[in-house]
Amino acid sequence: MRIHVVNPNSNVGMTEQIGKVARQFASPGTVIDLTRCATAPASIEGHADEALCVPPLLDEIHAAELRGADGHVIACFDDPGIGAAREVAAKPVIGICEASVHVALLLSCRFSVVTTLARSVPIIERLVEGYGAGHRCRGVRAVDMPVLALDEDVDATATRLATEIMAARRIEGAEAIILGCAGMSSLCKRLSVETGVPVIDGLSAAVRFAEALAGIGYSTSKLGGYASPLIKTGGFNFTRDCAGRKTVEA
Amino acid sequence: MRIHVVNPNSNVGMTEQIGKVARQFASPGTVIDLTRCATAPASIEGHADEALCVPPLLDEIHAAELRGADGHVIACFDDPGIGAAREVAAKPVIGICEASVHVALLLSCRFSVVTTLARSVPIIERLVEGYGAGHRCRGVRAVDMPVLALDEDVDATATRLATEIMAARRIEGAEAIILGCAGMSSLCKRLSVETGVPVIDGLSAAVRFAEALAGIGYSTSKLGGYASPLIKTGGFNFTRDCAGRKTVEA
Amino acid sequence: MRIHVVNPNSNVGMTEQIGKVARQFASPGTVIDLTRCATAPASIEGHADEALCVPPLLDEIHAAELRGADGHVIACFDDPGIGAAREVAAKPVIGICEASVHVALLLSCRFSVVTTLARSVPIIERLVEGYGAGHRCRGVRAVDMPVLALDEDVDATATRLATEIMAARRIEGAEAIILGCAGMSSLCKRLSVETGVPVIDGLSAAVRFAEALAGIGYSTSKLGGYASPLIKTGGFNFTRDCAGRKTVEA
Amino acid sequence: MRIHVVNPNSNVGMTEQIGKVARQFASPGTVIDLTRCATAPASIEGHADEALCVPPLLDEIHAAELRGADGHVIACFDDPGIGAAREVAAKPVIGICEASVHVALLLSCRFSVVTTLARSVPIIERLVEGYGAGHRCRGVRAVDMPVLALDEDVDATATRLATEIMAARRIEGAEAIILGCAGMSSLCKRLSVETGVPVIDGLSAAVRFAEALAGIGYSTSKLGGYASPLIKTGGFNFTRDCAGRKTVEA
Amino acid sequence: MRIHVVNPNSNVGMTEQIGKVARQFASPGTVIDLTRCATAPASIEGHADEALCVPPLLDEIHAAELRGADGHVIACFDDPGIGAAREVAAKPVIGICEASVHVALLLSCRFSVVTTLARSVPIIERLVEGYGAGHRCRGVRAVDMPVLALDEDVDATATRLATEIMAARRIEGAEAIILGCAGMSSLCKRLSVETGVPVIDGLSAAVRFAEALAGIGYSTSKLGGYASPLIKTGGFNFTRDCAGRKTVEA
Amino acid sequence: MRIHVVNPNSNVGMTEQIGKVARQFASPGTVIDLTRCATAPASIEGHADEALCVPPLLDEIHAAELRGADGHVIACFDDPGIGAAREVAAKPVIGICEASVHVALLLSCRFSVVTTLARSVPIIERLVEGYGAGHRCRGVRAVDMPVLALDEDVDATATRLATEIMAARRIEGAEAIILGCAGMSSLCKRLSVETGVPVIDGLSAAVRFAEALAGIGYSTSKLGGYASPLIKTGGFNFTRDCAGRKTVEA
Repeated sequence: MRIHVVNPNSNVGMTEQIGKVARQFASPGTVIDLTRCATAPASIEGHADEALCVPPLLDEIHAAELRGADGHVIACFDDPGIGAAREVAAKPVIGICEASVHVALLLSCRFSVVTTLARSVPIIERLVEGYGAGHRCRGVRAVDMPVLALDEDVDATATRLATEIMAARRIEGAEAIILGCAGMSSLCKRLSVETGVPVIDGLSAAVRFAEALAGIGYSTSKLGGYASPLIKTGGFNFTRDCAGRKTVEA
Repeated sequence: MRIHVVNPNSNVGMTEQIGKVARQFASPGTVIDLTRCATAPASIEGHADEALCVPPLLDEIHAAELRGADGHVIACFDDPGIGAAREVAAKPVIGICEASVHVALLLSCRFSVVTTLARSVPIIERLVEGYGAGHRCRGVRAVDMPVLALDEDVDATATRLATEIMAARRIEGAEAIILGCAGMSSLCKRLSVETGVPVIDGLSAAVRFAEALAGIGYSTSKLGGYASPLIKTGGFNFTRDCAGRKTVEA
Repeated sequence: MRIHVVNPNSNVGMTEQIGKVARQFASPGTVIDLTRCATAPASIEGHADEALCVPPLLDEIHAAELRGADGHVIACFDDPGIGAAREVAAKPVIGICEASVHVALLLSCRFSVVTTLARSVPIIERLVEGYGAGHRCRGVRAVDMPVLALDEDVDATATRLATEIMAARRIEGAEAIILGCAGMSSLCKRLSVETGVPVIDGLSAAVRFAEALAGIGYSTSKLGGYASPLIKTGGFNFTRDCAGRKTVEA
Repeated sequence: MRIHVVNPNSNVGMTEQIGKVARQFASPGTVIDLTRCATAPASIEGHADEALCVPPLLDEIHAAELRGADGHVIACFDDPGIGAAREVAAKPVIGICEASVHVALLLSCRFSVVTTLARSVPIIERLVEGYGAGHRCRGVRAVDMPVLALDEDVDATATRLATEIMAARRIEGAEAIILGCAGMSSLCKRLSVETGVPVIDGLSAAVRFAEALAGIGYSTSKLGGYASPLIKTGGFNFTRDCAGRKTVEA
Repeated sequence: MRIHVVNPNSNVGMTEQIGKVARQFASPGTVIDLTRCATAPASIEGHADEALCVPPLLDEIHAAELRGADGHVIACFDDPGIGAAREVAAKPVIGICEASVHVALLLSCRFSVVTTLARSVPIIERLVEGYGAGHRCRGVRAVDMPVLALDEDVDATATRLATEIMAARRIEGAEAIILGCAGMSSLCKRLSVETGVPVIDGLSAAVRFAEALAGIGYSTSKLGGYASPLIKTGGFNFTRDCAGRKTVEA
Repeated sequence: MRIHVVNPNSNVGMTEQIGKVARQFASPGTVIDLTRCATAPASIEGHADEALCVPPLLDEIHAAELRGADGHVIACFDDPGIGAAREVAAKPVIGICEASVHVALLLSCRFSVVTTLARSVPIIERLVEGYGAGHRCRGVRAVDMPVLALDEDVDATATRLATEIMAARRIEGAEAIILGCAGMSSLCKRLSVETGVPVIDGLSAAVRFAEALAGIGYSTSKLGGYASPLIKTGGFNFTRDCAGRKTVEA
């Protein structure tokens, strides 16, 4: 089993961290094919960052399928380009927000999300509503830390996250907490232990769900909204040498 | 990894069929602990059947945890007793309807469900709405066959299912089809090939999702709606010998 | 007119209290046929308690119809087994949560619910959403008292309820309050007077609504989701001597 | 018990018919105080008709309370002026659409509505959605007959209604049908017998629900959206002699 | 271009203020045809006030079309009689609540509303939900000032509004604020400057949207819910001399 | 007044057609600043096309603001990149889908959409739901013609569109029709005349709405979800010479 985990941003350190978590939680025998979007923003914080990461992300999806990926994980909590990635991919594509929401629905009646910046709150609210979990999400909270600052002082980060987790538990009655950024994944277990509240990380869940769908043999439906992109001037180019093109760009 | 798959009904043949599919799609190394609810109705077709299967189902959940289960699958598309089972269990509990809905959302923009009897249609519609997928479910169709008649003439069953699948594709624009009964699981691949429409079986998905959650180390949240049942006269009895009690009843 | 009021739990004292309220608010000439579920939990606090009370509850519904009931009231705020009861019954079946929600919608623009334990909050939220009143319910609050403790010190109970009622009024803008437990019914008038907020009790409303539907001559629709249970091994048994069977079990 | 039933239109024949049904289905001992809005349109077919009937309707509500009404029924399926009537009234006010929707929810999983003119379809759809039953209403159909033509040839009317009822059953899977006009109430039983589908009339239900709320002692909440109208130039005038004023106008 | 702006209440001072704002923000060349409902309540605060203003408002709509209006604005935040006005009008009719909600959706992810009296809060919540913006509206707040008191001490009013605006920003995360009363329109710019939060006035927006629709050449659809009122006894009378009739009544 | 209309695709002919319609329906005195995304796909048909057009579109938005644009219109019915564009822009940004939905809500109770390819149907359904109009949209239909084929044989295109419009009217009860592609705008009037159904074009509406918002002086809120993109490696670059960069790329 080969699961492609793509970091939609270009940050090398965060990519490595994502790879570490993905490999830690993957099933034995699963190969994690880790990529980053070299020409994308260094972190994804808002609609424009999201938009700019998608074109290189689609190339990574396609290149990974050429390398034999059985499934894909988009390792950013905004699930950027997930619809487009599903058009480009034959194999299943899992976003970490969508995966974490599914986990939260399976483990609890009501959950909250803790994310980085306030500007991401309405984006996540809209995602969660779109995934049909609006009525079970009690709130989306921000610790007001930029994505790339999360691992500057890990203890301080953990403390701020724990504070918001406890507030979501006490004020909103959350029964579980979703970590709203791929950069928080490595803190998941620690926060769960320290707060006594079940904490959910979308990255590990997405890797396992990708394995699950691929293991059964499912593919993305090509009958409708996720049909392969049409061939046209300026359109997605399935035939180009993805890796080569990116080398040039990077 | 040990996954408990409980057939909420008492039918031996259907239990075996469920076990076969569960073992076929489980990951290598996973042990399927298969049970049935010996005092439950022979098939689950409606609210009363559902209600009658839940007390023995809770005993099976508890007994399986005593035997070391890492996760549970409720192998009936009505997801009977799922909230109660999550109270009784420490480990994750997955219903096959909820699992199949999550798969459909990951693979397609819009899906339909094909089930057995018309009486189950409003039950499934309500479930799908409760899971937040009402806006992406295009319809729930019935082939008007009782659950236990599904495997009397497999080719005839496949033909009737294929007819409804094609209708859902043509009329409702479904991009994927969920099979709305655990008794249809073994036909999933065949129907997908014959109709050209991606067909989703909740049973295999639920087994893999249970593995996924257990593999990461998640438990059911005990902070709120799924807290363990309180000890009281007539309440759920965690200390009794579940297997023994059932032996007597069966 | 004969209205069957079934207490889904097995507690004798609470059953008597329910009977007292039901008789107090029934129309002149209505006979209240009061039953309890002798093998059910002593109180219904969570999904498992609910699940365990339904099988005996269905027997009580059926037995009451054999005794000539014109309608049924399920006297527990979780409306346990209401779908299954509607399958078993020919006559209308009213749950006290659903009835109280209807009353609240008729008397106010926005309401809140005050219930016993925090664990019941997500259950009630889901019920209210399912009844289509999610957008008009401003909150569900718990006094953190077990059901059977409500009448230990009635003045203390009233004080705690009044505190939550006033909070719902002040903070959530509730225009009316629903009492979220059958064990609170006898306090309804007193709380309304003491707080100045209209307080709604589902039990009296359900009795009157059952009279209303029966008085017009309505029956539960048997065309679809509430069709009578199919006859099958382990299925609901319409022909057994309900009362007799229960005597043995009790 | 004294229930005020107000026909929002000015038609004398239809008022009498409404009175007949109301008296037929009221509880023994209930006095029906029947009024019509003498200056309103002859029938309510659309938003403008609705708007024009409300000012005289509010006067009728007020006058009836002065005469001792314990509750009010607005006998038009558009529930015209129901919010304003609840402001003016101290006692409960029931609309026949809202009442019939509540009955349908209590008796069936899914229902459809059959009304008079196509122009009323979006009005009723919006009402039903507002009452929170949009997800359980399968359709609103029109027989394309004006309100006042319904009783010109009762057999022809019954035939056209029966045709739409059967279509709603067959095509939409409706388990019960709501008659979407007060002028159809007298056909309710007949249609139910002839089609085999439970048919619901909101007028009889509203009378019984008004009795129910009044019998328990409930009043309309005055804490918020239904607070009494403020006294102001051109505002609602509680002190005028309602009956006298109307005599002059009629 | 000729836009009819009707103040649904009868207050002369408020009408003039509305006219001033409408003319200030209309496009160059647009003629504002300003009317008031002489027989309506002096201010619209609740359902009954709304109901009483609609009949004269419909006459104003019709009379304005006879004078050549290309579009209509209903200058009260409750959008009173908007459906009926759309039946009576051939030209587009815009309510200031609906217009302001559309503006808020175009400029921000999430908004709040600040209105006058608490009694209007549930009315506005229901309007916003009906316009499909419930999931993006974070709250409706009241300054607890009657409509006609808003301009008694403009500085005090501005201070109270600013306080609520800042609270909505801080507590609810509102990204923009809608002023929930036509009487607040003249404070829009000032409040935006003083609070640093984008403040939206529905009156200016509605005038511009009416110009927009009329400029393109759109009319109200007459195929369904907004078809012209049917001619009947007591129904809307298109042929009467609107101005004459009102003169007599005023 | 200067309104920037950007065609998200790279097709020159379609850009000219969009410019023609925009200029035809703009207010007198409005200057239309017309651009296209030279490196984008030749037409936008699906998620991947959308994703690929957004980066150049953001550059066009920024460049137009540098040239003095008072507002922006994104002239593609998928509203691609609308959130990102609102981050980049100070001035209002209007999508033609969102604008047309607002118009449809102002002119009718219920509408349908007619678009080009079936693959766009779920994309549009999701957009319309996100705009809160799901409950008033009766259907989204496709004529099964690629975007760039629309003007090959204008009469044939008009005939196919008229056929779907009439079907939406007859089958779904649509009271107005939205044209679901910028390439259909020039047919709007003709189709309305030929079918007798009000037909709505989002492009002209968006131009007028952009004028409206800019005319009043509104800007996009920078407090939250549409805050300006953060400056970072690979992030949106406000300081580059947009026009110059594009010249090189084109």
